[in-house]
Amino acid sequence: MTARGRQRRNSDAIHQKPWKQLRNPFTPAKLISDDEVEAIHQASLQVLETVGVKCAVPEAQSLLAKAGAKLDASTGLIKLGREVVEAALQTVAPALEITPRNPAHVVRLHGPYLATAAVLGPPACKDLIRGRRTGTIDDFRELMKLTQFFNAVQMNGFPVEPQDIAVPIRHLHAARAMLELTDKVPYVFAQSPQRIRDVVTMCALARGETVEQFSQHPGVYSIINTNTPLVFDVPMTTGIMEMARVGQPTLLTPFIIAGASTPATLAGAIVLNNAEILFGLTLAQLVRPGAPMIYGAAVTAADMRTGAPAYGLPDMQRGTIISGQMARRYNMPLRASNFSSSNVPDFASGMESSNSVFAGMMAGNNFLMHAAGWLEGGLCSGYEKFVLDCELLQSMMHTLEPVEVSANSLAIDEIAEIGPGGHFFGSQRTLDTVETAFYRPMISLTQNHGAWSEAGGKDAAQRAVPIWQNALKEYQAPPLDPAIKEALDEFVAKRSEQGGAPLM
Amino acid sequence: MTARGRQRRNSDAIHQKPWKQLRNPFTPAKLISDDEVEAIHQASLQVLETVGVKCAVPEAQSLLAKAGAKLDASTGLIKLGREVVEAALQTVAPALEITPRNPAHVVRLHGPYLATAAVLGPPACKDLIRGRRTGTIDDFRELMKLTQFFNAVQMNGFPVEPQDIAVPIRHLHAARAMLELTDKVPYVFAQSPQRIRDVVTMCALARGETVEQFSQHPGVYSIINTNTPLVFDVPMTTGIMEMARVGQPTLLTPFIIAGASTPATLAGAIVLNNAEILFGLTLAQLVRPGAPMIYGAAVTAADMRTGAPAYGLPDMQRGTIISGQMARRYNMPLRASNFSSSNVPDFASGMESSNSVFAGMMAGNNFLMHAAGWLEGGLCSGYEKFVLDCELLQSMMHTLEPVEVSANSLAIDEIAEIGPGGHFFGSQRTLDTVETAFYRPMISLTQNHGAWSEAGGKDAAQRAVPIWQNALKEYQAPPLDPAIKEALDEFVAKRSEQGGAPLM
Repeated sequence: MTARGRQRRNSDAIHQKPWKQLRNPFTPAKLISDDEVEAIHQASLQVLETVGVKCAVPEAQSLLAKAGAKLDASTGLIKLGREVVEAALQTVAPALEITPRNPAHVVRLHGPYLATAAVLGPPACKDLIRGRRTGTIDDFRELMKLTQFFNAVQMNGFPVEPQDIAVPIRHLHAARAMLELTDKVPYVFAQSPQRIRDVVTMCALARGETVEQFSQHPGVYSIINTNTPLVFDVPMTTGIMEMARVGQPTLLTPFIIAGASTPATLAGAIVLNNAEILFGLTLAQLVRPGAPMIYGAAVTAADMRTGAPAYGLPDMQRGTIISGQMARRYNMPLRASNFSSSNVPDFASGMESSNSVFAGMMAGNNFLMHAAGWLEGGLCSGYEKFVLDCELLQSMMHTLEPVEVSANSLAIDEIAEIGPGGHFFGSQRTLDTVETAFYRPMISLTQNHGAWSEAGGKDAAQRAVPIWQNALKEYQAPPLDPAIKEALDEFVAKRSEQGGAPLM
Repeated sequence: MTARGRQRRNSDAIHQKPWKQLRNPFTPAKLISDDEVEAIHQASLQVLETVGVKCAVPEAQSLLAKAGAKLDASTGLIKLGREVVEAALQTVAPALEITPRNPAHVVRLHGPYLATAAVLGPPACKDLIRGRRTGTIDDFRELMKLTQFFNAVQMNGFPVEPQDIAVPIRHLHAARAMLELTDKVPYVFAQSPQRIRDVVTMCALARGETVEQFSQHPGVYSIINTNTPLVFDVPMTTGIMEMARVGQPTLLTPFIIAGASTPATLAGAIVLNNAEILFGLTLAQLVRPGAPMIYGAAVTAADMRTGAPAYGLPDMQRGTIISGQMARRYNMPLRASNFSSSNVPDFASGMESSNSVFAGMMAGNNFLMHAAGWLEGGLCSGYEKFVLDCELLQSMMHTLEPVEVSANSLAIDEIAEIGPGGHFFGSQRTLDTVETAFYRPMISLTQNHGAWSEAGGKDAAQRAVPIWQNALKEYQAPPLDPAIKEALDEFVAKRSEQGGAPLM
């Protein structure tokens, strides 16, 4: 076969952009003035100082009281003075790198850097071939393979809940699958300190380290959703503390639904989001000064027709941009999300997801959560949506790339050579760079209507089916030292025998 | 019926945001440095000076030669010195307002201001009920009604070619339908000076003015697509000149497909786009100093699999942002587009359209072309796409709105009143502002999967069908003075009798 023939054949393969640490060249956008940022900061401090936060965890209560907070022991209400918060803001780590077992897949989450993670948390999954179903460990393993296969997904999420595994040992089996089938940054649920300890031990084993060594540089992340307004429940509070203790980053994301869990104003929603983040980071800094944290922006408004959060709609995008302004006020990394409300990957899904991803990019987000696979407002993982989101992520990645402006790329000589009325299809540069000069989509098509109809008239979701099918076929497990694999298996067996760990 | 009952019933109606001149609060994004902007400017001047532009219109040749350009009369090649261009850049109007027959629908297209226009140019149209078809005057009239009905569409495009009307009189019938059925800014094709004169006369009649009066302040717009590389054909050249003569704005948009009509580099594509815009605006300024112009950004790359322009893909979005930097260099209004390649309104369509609209917004565009209805890379108008795009436009409009940060909106008292663990569904503010506090979608849904399935499991495109159907039912013709209507009819009759005007 000729080189040209091979090239043609390869063009049927899945076209991915290579793995790359992303860097956002845009100055972060502003929707409010710096004075207004300060007003939100001050309002948040006032809420913490005068309204307070309810938290039922004695260890947290005593740590905060010792630092100067006022505790009402009978109700668990903690009023937090601004001096305690301001001190905590001095120690929170501004820079954050997370290193998984494959150090080539390290991600930076600070300054202009950006990384993406797969969808996290759905109880169900679906695809156009096998339909909608409750998640199993087999589904989980498949979605791990897609996470590993697609370069646009840079970190793990928790793409479906493997509900066929008993709850006390589910975290062990899921973590093993994640650490074996992927070598990207793993995720741990903050469901109890014991579960965090189990998974952190496994992440340390996967990096060939002790937990003590692992605690010295981040290798896993977790998320805390506070119970807005102003309640820190037991699993979340103990989760923050346990993650801080082992030096691992926590994403602080209050559950903001403006008009439901917060006042029906964007500013009021941001005040509560910000106040609860400040409370969480203060607690973490008291446990371990310097503990890495990420500022969560998942500010949605309620859809007043259903009471549900309006994921992917424009109030959320405004909330993301303002949250970016707050995160920069605190010199903290920003989390945004590829959110959408749609039940299927249709026009609304594409619009909501794209608007969310662009808003995150404009906001200067460092971490894009739920970047691939989110459907049904987060209640279902979609296989086709996973692929379609990878196209969206690749589009964003391409948009972020530097533009070469040089004598070579300005191409005055080439323009003179071709001259008025000519064309550039045959120019040497076009021939040489046909595969690489511009973005090459996986899903988007420029076929005209006739050719497209003759080829079956498939919409984007239908065209995504063979892509996830091929990705599962082409998937290659990342190398894993057999001794590490054995250690992970032994740990899972031992902890299972001990009964695993319950939810809190 | 109680007030509450009425409110509920009204919630079945089409939820539109009101008509509003849009104002973009974001600082325009940059992808290249100011030095690189200057390098592109210099390269463009060098191309005009040393390579030149071919233009076969004697009047244009002599105007440019008189201003100092070097003309090769045998080939029509014009080499344009930088001093001629720099002089023209001094006179081009920085501010632009276009006033249609209803002065309430005036649009500002400069500085932070932004307006949208319906799709322009498709030969065909389609909807899910009646299928795909060649455009007729009936389709054209329906799409005029949608243009008038939806507040998110602020200016006319030319949403389908009414091919059942004979070519010489088509412009007369289309312009009459546009001026009767809508009172938004009209559009005229630059297909020949006679056609421009006909339509401008009708636009003047609709404003109750003479052509002389009409020429004093803009009331219609046109678009010039040059034949890249470096050819200005007869209809386009004479179009620029005729529009300048009557003081109406021209959108200068070279037909840039990087790798096909330009070198296969983004910088090279921008050089040709910029050089051709500079040529066109120089010609217009020589005809009438101060003639209003718009800087066109429709820089696409070729899809090397098909040779077609990759509308809506990320190289285009990068081109839009850089074009914004160039337009600001010249203090000119920027045109961007809601572009997409998809043949149907699916996920890819939503993603491509949203990415384009967001890129335009980031670029600080003043004029969003093809804002509603564009399908099949511009070869077909879609009724459902029109509605779906209005949702996208409304999302953008909502994102651009000012955020209130005040003692009232920060809501500290309300947060204190509800307290930790409460909810805000029943707070007075929530009850009072339930309809207005947050974005209310036309199409996007937050229904959960079960409720959505029970309601028929319709995707966004299917849900758009009853919306355009209802819009056509609810459409009300904007008031038109009977004397003006009569004058328009008389003009159409007279010019038709005279044989109309051929294409050039």
